[in-house]
Amino acid sequence: MTSRTIAEQHDRDDPLAPWRSEFSIPDPDLIYLDGNSLGRTPTRTIAALNEVVTRQWAGDLITSWWENDWLDLPLTVGDGLAPLIGARPGEVAVHDSTTVCLFQLVNVALDLTAGSVIAVADTDFPTDRYIVDGIARIRSGVEVRRGTENLDGVDVVVRSHVDYRTADIAPLAEETARASATGTMTVWDLSHSAGVVEVDLTGAGVELAAGCTYKFLNGGPGSPAFTYVRASIIGDVTQPIHGWFGQRNQFAMDNPFDPRDGIGRMLNGTPGILGLVAARCGIELSAEAGIAAIATKAHELCAFAIDVAGDLGLTCATQRPPASSGGHISIVHEDAADLQRRLADLQVIVDKRDPDVLRFGLAPLTTRYVDAYDGLARLAELVRE
Amino acid sequence: MTSRTIAEQHDRDDPLAPWRSEFSIPDPDLIYLDGNSLGRTPTRTIAALNEVVTRQWAGDLITSWWENDWLDLPLTVGDGLAPLIGARPGEVAVHDSTTVCLFQLVNVALDLTAGSVIAVADTDFPTDRYIVDGIARIRSGVEVRRGTENLDGVDVVVRSHVDYRTADIAPLAEETARASATGTMTVWDLSHSAGVVEVDLTGAGVELAAGCTYKFLNGGPGSPAFTYVRASIIGDVTQPIHGWFGQRNQFAMDNPFDPRDGIGRMLNGTPGILGLVAARCGIELSAEAGIAAIATKAHELCAFAIDVAGDLGLTCATQRPPASSGGHISIVHEDAADLQRRLADLQVIVDKRDPDVLRFGLAPLTTRYVDAYDGLARLAELVRE
Repeated sequence: MTSRTIAEQHDRDDPLAPWRSEFSIPDPDLIYLDGNSLGRTPTRTIAALNEVVTRQWAGDLITSWWENDWLDLPLTVGDGLAPLIGARPGEVAVHDSTTVCLFQLVNVALDLTAGSVIAVADTDFPTDRYIVDGIARIRSGVEVRRGTENLDGVDVVVRSHVDYRTADIAPLAEETARASATGTMTVWDLSHSAGVVEVDLTGAGVELAAGCTYKFLNGGPGSPAFTYVRASIIGDVTQPIHGWFGQRNQFAMDNPFDPRDGIGRMLNGTPGILGLVAARCGIELSAEAGIAAIATKAHELCAFAIDVAGDLGLTCATQRPPASSGGHISIVHEDAADLQRRLADLQVIVDKRDPDVLRFGLAPLTTRYVDAYDGLARLAELVRE
Repeated sequence: MTSRTIAEQHDRDDPLAPWRSEFSIPDPDLIYLDGNSLGRTPTRTIAALNEVVTRQWAGDLITSWWENDWLDLPLTVGDGLAPLIGARPGEVAVHDSTTVCLFQLVNVALDLTAGSVIAVADTDFPTDRYIVDGIARIRSGVEVRRGTENLDGVDVVVRSHVDYRTADIAPLAEETARASATGTMTVWDLSHSAGVVEVDLTGAGVELAAGCTYKFLNGGPGSPAFTYVRASIIGDVTQPIHGWFGQRNQFAMDNPFDPRDGIGRMLNGTPGILGLVAARCGIELSAEAGIAAIATKAHELCAFAIDVAGDLGLTCATQRPPASSGGHISIVHEDAADLQRRLADLQVIVDKRDPDVLRFGLAPLTTRYVDAYDGLARLAELVRE
């Protein structure tokens, strides 16, 4: 049987507990269980943004693109992210939104397979579904199939590593291989796994992936996304949004488009430096804490929260880790919307996904066991009333 | 004959002179003549970023999307920009990079014209040329023509309002009408005119345009770009990068893609909030100073600088306003690269465009007549040596 005392004991034993002090937490009474939607603010981010604005932008001005390495930031931040997802240096770029990254990657996959049939699950995150429909509008002959069970005749499949509702985790290596067996190229969406699940893109044989830095990676609101392309295929990749940041020798302006070598060819326009600097801070922090320790705590904290939910009579749609491990658990209740509002009145912030899911985000670097316990206990009280 | 004394007199008479104090200028001895590449830092931006990071992100966390109106920021910042380019409320969204905005708009123009032939000038800014080539790669049957003189048989033309090298200004209304006469839809790139030239998109009959906020609008490094779509056609527009921020009722996640009403349908993924907040500050500042006053000073300062260059024996490729009025003048010299470096050693920052152009940017809100005079005088000395 779980209890608040046991939660307190877990917090005392938690090797990641000290990392919470790396974050700005102005209201210690607020129970924030939505780090899976927007991660908390690292204190170092505040200092880094101040530095980039007052010293680099205001002081060094245009020369910052060279002197302060702004030009390289999408790739250096990508290299910082690489070890968190089992990628190698030079395989990750941080840029644009997840939507734009996925748009580019699905186009690339169609090119590489010389294909025309894309599959996506009806239950997948909306953007993943919308993206392929948008591509089918402008690429003639492209056909979209709903469902990813049968991949016969499918050229490209878009898959989420962790399900945004249930937190179920897809077997990365197995699914990539199964797709490969039918000649299908997989574009992986790591939005709900990057920074909380141990991802081994290299070992799993993944070729193309994208994901998000504003959730578990604490990169800030709308911080830039990331693109991963396996080094062995990057030379064959031309993404469709040609801009001067994807161009070889970008300041030699009279040349025709010629994509630069390496992952830099996934860039398009001028990158947003403020967002990149904030993303770098969040990514650095996770890299310092170590993804193995983070994923271990995610497992243990989720398992504990699932047990608490069971003990309190709540219905949990999330399987126990390791079957799920997305850093959140989903509580199902028909009054989800109303309960979310009433929890907020009780200083508990959770996420809701229509029609009936409350997501309790358990970001390992900032969520204590007592936070999970107290949040679920307050929900159980509301449900009983 | 020009002189430094005359420059000083112009500064005393300049009604915009007080606006310079709205900017953070840590090194008063630095002569910064590159505000056409990266505008200076408004002091209010420093305060606004601090507020958004420490109070909104760290304090209000996920609820900021609603409570602090983050969700609406791309459109509210767009409404703030609208009067600066002669657009009406609801016609402008601030989002993504200029590259992504142009990619979307050229696709939209192909859809609206049911067309397949795109024209772009060989001398246009690289991204404008690259974009259409990238679209031709993925849209079968699309043909790209170099040159925009003869538009017979052309469905879509991409045009820069102000030439990035010479600062020549294209007649917006005339060219839009001339294109229309051959059934050609024009996508205007306002990157080098927004915030420095009086642009009347409504009066000129422009339908589609994009531009940049990090130059004369002082939005910060890589700040988000903007998209303009005339209200009368927005209902017929579907852009190709479908994401959840372009979706009607974005949190009702089970629906198929259905673009929201109005300019919001040009959005795709989650917008970068830090970049938007900085862009808002720069745009607000220009709106407060007034685009008529800014454009007037741009004319007068450019004309003065062209006269100074002539008096000092420099070769200027920029026509006198109003034929040019892009807020910069271009000095041609075969040793441009070397001269740029040596000017920097003398505390004068200018821009260079290969092979032989030095751009002297004269951002009206932050550049004094003495800055233009001193910068050109130091260049003339270097050339004489």
